[in-house]
Amino acid sequence: MSSQGLANEDASLSGNFAYDDNWYMYGPIGDQDDMTPEVIPDCFPTIPDDLYHACMAPISLVILLILSLLVKRKKLYKSCWNGAPGLLSPLHFLEEDGKKGLTVAVFGILFSSLCVLVLDNNPLPFLSNSSTQYREYYKIMALLYYPAFYYPLIACATVQHRVGYLFGCLLSWCHCVVYLWQKVECPQSPKIYRYYSLLSYLPIILCLLVLSLWYPAQLLKSFREKEKVVADEIPGSDYCKGYLKNILAKKAPKRSSNMAKPGLQSRLQSYLRSYIYTPQEGFQIPLKLVLSLAMALISVYQVALLLLSAFVPNIQIVRSGMTKELTALFVQFGIVPSENPAGIPGDKELATAKHYIWSVEVCFVISLVISCLLTFGMLLKSLVKHRINLQRLYQGAVLDVFYRSRRLRPSQQALVCWMCFAGFQAAFACLGLLIQQIILFVCTVGFTFLVVIPLQSGSNVHLFKIVENMWPFWLTLVVAVIAQNLLTHYCFLEHGCEPKELTNRRALYIVTYLLFPINVLIGVLAGVWRLVVSALYNVVHFCRLDVSLLGHGVEVFDPGYRTYCYYLKIEVSQSHPVMKAFCVLLLQTHSPSRRKGLQPREAEEGVKLMKTTMPTSKASKSKQNLARWSLAYTLLNNPSLLPYRKGVLSNKTPNGMQVSPARP
Amino acid sequence: MSSQGLANEDASLSGNFAYDDNWYMYGPIGDQDDMTPEVIPDCFPTIPDDLYHACMAPISLVILLILSLLVKRKKLYKSCWNGAPGLLSPLHFLEEDGKKGLTVAVFGILFSSLCVLVLDNNPLPFLSNSSTQYREYYKIMALLYYPAFYYPLIACATVQHRVGYLFGCLLSWCHCVVYLWQKVECPQSPKIYRYYSLLSYLPIILCLLVLSLWYPAQLLKSFREKEKVVADEIPGSDYCKGYLKNILAKKAPKRSSNMAKPGLQSRLQSYLRSYIYTPQEGFQIPLKLVLSLAMALISVYQVALLLLSAFVPNIQIVRSGMTKELTALFVQFGIVPSENPAGIPGDKELATAKHYIWSVEVCFVISLVISCLLTFGMLLKSLVKHRINLQRLYQGAVLDVFYRSRRLRPSQQALVCWMCFAGFQAAFACLGLLIQQIILFVCTVGFTFLVVIPLQSGSNVHLFKIVENMWPFWLTLVVAVIAQNLLTHYCFLEHGCEPKELTNRRALYIVTYLLFPINVLIGVLAGVWRLVVSALYNVVHFCRLDVSLLGHGVEVFDPGYRTYCYYLKIEVSQSHPVMKAFCVLLLQTHSPSRRKGLQPREAEEGVKLMKTTMPTSKASKSKQNLARWSLAYTLLNNPSLLPYRKGVLSNKTPNGMQVSPARP
Repeated sequence: MSSQGLANEDASLSGNFAYDDNWYMYGPIGDQDDMTPEVIPDCFPTIPDDLYHACMAPISLVILLILSLLVKRKKLYKSCWNGAPGLLSPLHFLEEDGKKGLTVAVFGILFSSLCVLVLDNNPLPFLSNSSTQYREYYKIMALLYYPAFYYPLIACATVQHRVGYLFGCLLSWCHCVVYLWQKVECPQSPKIYRYYSLLSYLPIILCLLVLSLWYPAQLLKSFREKEKVVADEIPGSDYCKGYLKNILAKKAPKRSSNMAKPGLQSRLQSYLRSYIYTPQEGFQIPLKLVLSLAMALISVYQVALLLLSAFVPNIQIVRSGMTKELTALFVQFGIVPSENPAGIPGDKELATAKHYIWSVEVCFVISLVISCLLTFGMLLKSLVKHRINLQRLYQGAVLDVFYRSRRLRPSQQALVCWMCFAGFQAAFACLGLLIQQIILFVCTVGFTFLVVIPLQSGSNVHLFKIVENMWPFWLTLVVAVIAQNLLTHYCFLEHGCEPKELTNRRALYIVTYLLFPINVLIGVLAGVWRLVVSALYNVVHFCRLDVSLLGHGVEVFDPGYRTYCYYLKIEVSQSHPVMKAFCVLLLQTHSPSRRKGLQPREAEEGVKLMKTTMPTSKASKSKQNLARWSLAYTLLNNPSLLPYRKGVLSNKTPNGMQVSPARP
Repeated sequence: MSSQGLANEDASLSGNFAYDDNWYMYGPIGDQDDMTPEVIPDCFPTIPDDLYHACMAPISLVILLILSLLVKRKKLYKSCWNGAPGLLSPLHFLEEDGKKGLTVAVFGILFSSLCVLVLDNNPLPFLSNSSTQYREYYKIMALLYYPAFYYPLIACATVQHRVGYLFGCLLSWCHCVVYLWQKVECPQSPKIYRYYSLLSYLPIILCLLVLSLWYPAQLLKSFREKEKVVADEIPGSDYCKGYLKNILAKKAPKRSSNMAKPGLQSRLQSYLRSYIYTPQEGFQIPLKLVLSLAMALISVYQVALLLLSAFVPNIQIVRSGMTKELTALFVQFGIVPSENPAGIPGDKELATAKHYIWSVEVCFVISLVISCLLTFGMLLKSLVKHRINLQRLYQGAVLDVFYRSRRLRPSQQALVCWMCFAGFQAAFACLGLLIQQIILFVCTVGFTFLVVIPLQSGSNVHLFKIVENMWPFWLTLVVAVIAQNLLTHYCFLEHGCEPKELTNRRALYIVTYLLFPINVLIGVLAGVWRLVVSALYNVVHFCRLDVSLLGHGVEVFDPGYRTYCYYLKIEVSQSHPVMKAFCVLLLQTHSPSRRKGLQPREAEEGVKLMKTTMPTSKASKSKQNLARWSLAYTLLNNPSLLPYRKGVLSNKTPNGMQVSPARP
């Protein structure tokens, strides 16, 4: 496919950047409104955007209405025409129903549309050639239009019915074919860079391809399952039971492994494992986290694409259009060294100037690649951290996660933060990449022009001269540090006894007094180092919501970390796998007649049956956990006991209950 | 005194900065080597620097030798000529001997000399007119020369003898008189700003004045104490005993006050108290901390003085030298608005340009005042934090201070960090003020030219135009946030029951999906806010060593915080007041015959008798503390028991000992 071929070309460009300028054309660049039809001809696809949206929007609406009616009739037969049919739920964020791929694909389409929208001149496609005056209003309307436009694509799957899958197939195929057709007909556009539009639409097309394969697969599966006559299960109940069994089964071996002291190799492995996410048996990352990280990846792609296509073609045009007159300006400012005393540049100076511009270009690409890799690494690491935090909170270790006691229960703030979470993660990844790119670009350009080019050419050796002039100063500092360490080791600490004790205090005080001025200068260097380290740390960790950029005790003023903490509260209090396993067991045993018709809504009701209050002290918490686990194990092995427990569970916390577990 | 009058003038200048340019003269400014004798005449003081140093250095050396011999003969009579007389200890960092004022004064002289030295052309005074080639080497030598030169000023006090105080008087008077004489004769110098030299020497002169009053006072006191025939005490023993009594006495009322719930007023008071340091009965800040904070204050003064005198006179000269030709340049760049369409500036444009330059000047002074106030506030706050940390560590609450378990025992790293601590604090305050000034200056200039001046004159209203054009966008975001909060409050949370439970989950999921694009945009704003908040936090807290600028778990890579942690380790393990009280009691009871001759060295030996191992678990620690306190109380009230305890104390930890405390 042509679009994928182009994507590969772009990837190889950013990777192995070569010193040639044949791959781009001197196309129209600069202002977005600067249309130059001489180079890129106006292209009118067979199905223009306005026609596509004008057709698809009503079709989507009709499909949504049909599905709503179907669901109403099927589930609430008697009161079918009592009220208008309700909207379908787009997805179940808090339930594990195994539709992560679908969700990520639809949100990916939505987010990529948003990215395209921000720079678009026609925010609402069916109002083409909108005037500049009202563009802002149209953009705001588009922010609400696009989610509604793609709504049926995701809602079709939540019906969990063959008709829904069928409509899903039709819709996704329609969208996919139209976009592909448009982009095959008109691969180039005059905006920013001729292939920018195509490349920015790539995630949308890929997500639509995923959808148009997922829906047929589900349709086929639903036919096959009908033949097997398998009872419908509450979505996600398998995972909850698996989690519970995994916890209960793994307890014994885990303890023994904790006893053994870890060797160097295992510590290295665990360090690497803290950066690379490897799936763990019996644990799944919640849907909302997967979604937010996928959005972050798409946002990194879009920002990197925008930066690359806005900078590299332009600077290549500047380089190829470099003349001797412009080089004279460079020579006058002392940027390009000239052998001619009059400062009139020759061919050599022109080549040097071109080489310098090429260096800037290479620096830009290198810093972009490094920023992308750093952001990817941080997102991977945050995935590992999310899992650790969730596991700790599931076990009640609130202090290990928040470093202070917090109550894990829903509140207004927490719920609003939970709603914003995925959007925040995507936005922070965008901004983080931008900031990283700016800082790294400045650093690489500085390094190139202060170290690499002087080493190559022997000119502009200002930095080396400064370092050379200051060598006695550096030597003094190094000698002072070494002397203090040696004196401490051999004179001021008593050896032989453990713990070590101070000795020769008088000499220690004399040395401390005499070296005070030098220690101030060492302190200045340490301060510069502190500045660099803290700036780099903050820039690199900017995209991570699970890390606070503020100090201990004031984390709450960091909007990212605050959102993450509140998100965790809702996630843990509302979808604790052990609690859900209870609810599933309760519902299944209580209504054997309705087993086939169990729906997520009823599972939610089950969730409400289990009200947990979190005691602050850790000791009583773990005791309570132990009691709960024993209860869970007993109930799993003796389902006949379940009806007798229900009365206790619907009341307040079963805190000090004594259940004799029926271990096999 | 003229120097103090000038300081007041300078202070009033930076405070109430007025729009006039009469207070400075068009003196020589710019390059340091740019001597312009036309304006400031060359001034040769009666006692030039080289003569002063050439005389005072040998005198100091002789005094030092005499004192060393005296101490040797007095204390180690028999082996007096066995070896060369040892150096006197300059001060006892780890003992509380009540000479904080003296120590701060001498270190202040030393640090101010270092500040003067950095910009000086004659680093070693007796090698006047040193060539530029060797200046670096001379500066490095001066770094070691000045501490040695001022050494006798501090060493005279540690002898604790009348002769020492007498020499101290003579030395401090000599230094003081010479400096005062020099500065009265030559108040102006051509470097940076005509009064810069005078003002930068001000801390030295003030510190010397303190010394020349302190030594006579001590001399008089020693004569009076001889008459009273008071037994010499081990320095600092009063404080240790007081601390111990305070802890033991206050225990009961403290507990009862903790029980009562704090009201709003008391919480406000405690918040204010966390910023303003108020002395606490029975607790003194250790010498090294007082010293480091005093050095930080002096460094703030020196940096602020340098910034003010390097910037303000220069920009005032630029303003008064502003011509219509220069204004034309401003008009061309669009900085100064012109009513003349040809862009030829008239009187009005010239006045506007002068007003703009004056605004920059005011911004600079305002930002400098704010940075100084912020730094002072942070240093005060860190003083409060130091006390809290020390008190917690004295009580064994290691986790509350370091947030992880650490062993409080000396190590090589810890001792090196302890030696560097005061220097680091001074250097960090310097750098912190510089960074704050840069950031705040940029911010105030931006605020002035984007908000204040457009509001005043009605020109350059770019920012207001942007905000005006984007109002639908801001309105949308605000409406979205409010809508999410209202929906959450009224629809998605069940009221009445506690804890609140989620309800209407389907609607919640629909809203979350539909508002995703708007939440991304809110996230971008939150990200910008995160950037601003974290940058401001780091800049403001840069001067504080007790705050880590890195995240939780990687604090060790922050050189400032690392130094502070190690410093605390040494301070707590070596000068725990309770431990010192024990040692004092032991020494006093054990050698009644030598009571008069007790010297700090022997107290140190006493310290070594008490070897403490720190158990990791908090519970056993507090039990041990309780046992120790009981023991201390018993021993305080029954001194006759002391000889019997000595055998236990010199062995390993008296961990599980059972002592029945003899409470009155």
